[in-house]
Amino acid sequence: MGSSDKLLFTPGPLTTSEAVKQAMLHDWGSRDDSFVELIQRIRRRLLQIGGVDDGTYEAVLMQGSGTFVVESVISSLVPRGGKLLVAINGGYGRRMAQIARTLAIETEVIIVPEAQPVAPTRIEDALIRDPAITHVGMVHCETTTGIVNPVEEVGRLARRLRRTFIVDAMSSFGGMPMDIRGWGVDLLVSSANKCIQGVPGFGFVLARRALLLEAEGRARSVSLDLVSQWKGMETDGQFRFTPPTHAILAFWQALEELEAEGGDHRAGKSLR
Amino acid sequence: MGSSDKLLFTPGPLTTSEAVKQAMLHDWGSRDDSFVELIQRIRRRLLQIGGVDDGTYEAVLMQGSGTFVVESVISSLVPRGGKLLVAINGGYGRRMAQIARTLAIETEVIIVPEAQPVAPTRIEDALIRDPAITHVGMVHCETTTGIVNPVEEVGRLARRLRRTFIVDAMSSFGGMPMDIRGWGVDLLVSSANKCIQGVPGFGFVLARRALLLEAEGRARSVSLDLVSQWKGMETDGQFRFTPPTHAILAFWQALEELEAEGGDHRAGKSLR
Repeated sequence: MGSSDKLLFTPGPLTTSEAVKQAMLHDWGSRDDSFVELIQRIRRRLLQIGGVDDGTYEAVLMQGSGTFVVESVISSLVPRGGKLLVAINGGYGRRMAQIARTLAIETEVIIVPEAQPVAPTRIEDALIRDPAITHVGMVHCETTTGIVNPVEEVGRLARRLRRTFIVDAMSSFGGMPMDIRGWGVDLLVSSANKCIQGVPGFGFVLARRALLLEAEGRARSVSLDLVSQWKGMETDGQFRFTPPTHAILAFWQALEELEAEGGDHRAGKSLR
Repeated sequence: MGSSDKLLFTPGPLTTSEAVKQAMLHDWGSRDDSFVELIQRIRRRLLQIGGVDDGTYEAVLMQGSGTFVVESVISSLVPRGGKLLVAINGGYGRRMAQIARTLAIETEVIIVPEAQPVAPTRIEDALIRDPAITHVGMVHCETTTGIVNPVEEVGRLARRLRRTFIVDAMSSFGGMPMDIRGWGVDLLVSSANKCIQGVPGFGFVLARRALLLEAEGRARSVSLDLVSQWKGMETDGQFRFTPPTHAILAFWQALEELEAEGGDHRAGKSLR
């Protein structure tokens, strides 16, 4: 870091350690064995951080910003005829609804003032009133305001009412305690460049394996097809399309630093 | 570069210079003035390299691999009711057709053996026979085999027959002579990590400005909406969603090195 480098940024990428940046001083071939092995190590580590490394969840990496990864989940998981309910109290909740509508997915929204968390009872009422709703989407920590939504309560009621629960955990995963399975989070989305403090270029999904299996062929996109991406990583271990190799090298270093700092406890292990 | 680092990779990312990698040793805020200015410099430089810096073309950067950028063009430019003709003689031609079909765009293909360039007469025949075809897609240099397709002839006939011409120039732009305007290339797609020798993480489009203006609202995606991405870069100069900041810093260094090597001549200036 140069002496004139800034220390604090607006939402987006964050500052990273020297070692994270130095990990990018090597070119790796994205189809070489050593890189494939690194992808698998990263996937396993993400499942461990999330406390879901027992074979029922899968970690899938996806190129692009966090928004690309949220879109890949909505595009790949919600079936034709499905309906998404989005709880909105900030810019990232609004974006979830915008993504679904652009994909021609039927979408209902619950809008709450930005300074308030979403009330679980409003979501419960909507799910009871409208049996067509198949999926519920919510932001955990709204990056725009920092407000934290009640993922635990909403997850439990979504599970009770048999809806799939998608959580945008961009600004929380790796930084806030979270019991993914216990809370009933079916699909969690986060990014390399938030709490784990890697550099931007890709994000990831922790997904219930059974949901990925049943979603094959649903994606409205080739690039953002999360199920094909997962299957590629499972068969030959590679990304289907060129990954941001240097950002991935940086991310592994960031994961090592998170672990050295006791990051697993912050992210969920202490809750199990 | 460490002494054990490899020098030659399979298709995907390539090796980069030490200075390109060292450009990534700084964190930049993606909404800071200095970063916004860098984006604009890169956009101008790409237009110069392409020989289309007279205001009739625009350069738009897009997160993800080259495939993401190709998808952004097809998704954002082909209107409802449009039809894409793809000339296929390798994996990347096939992928263009797969993208269009997944987006529910009517698609016709001309399939040629992988060791042969596509014959312009076959495309001409198809365009004359089927007036429903609005767009023609072709790969310039097929990364899979290295074969070069006759972009000049196909571009001229597409212009004569009033179809929009999309060229995947992933493995050619910046490395092979190309007269984008003269040949009638309306939309050219390439990537940071091919001939310009940056690191992977994003790609770019050189697009006829008039086509971007008339395509607003067509995109089937939020993340891959090329027109919104362009408008964002025109209004506040920023990416709409977090860009791979470090890869972009590396790309500027790679552009400087291309210019120092006389790269403009290789890419088109000598043809004007």
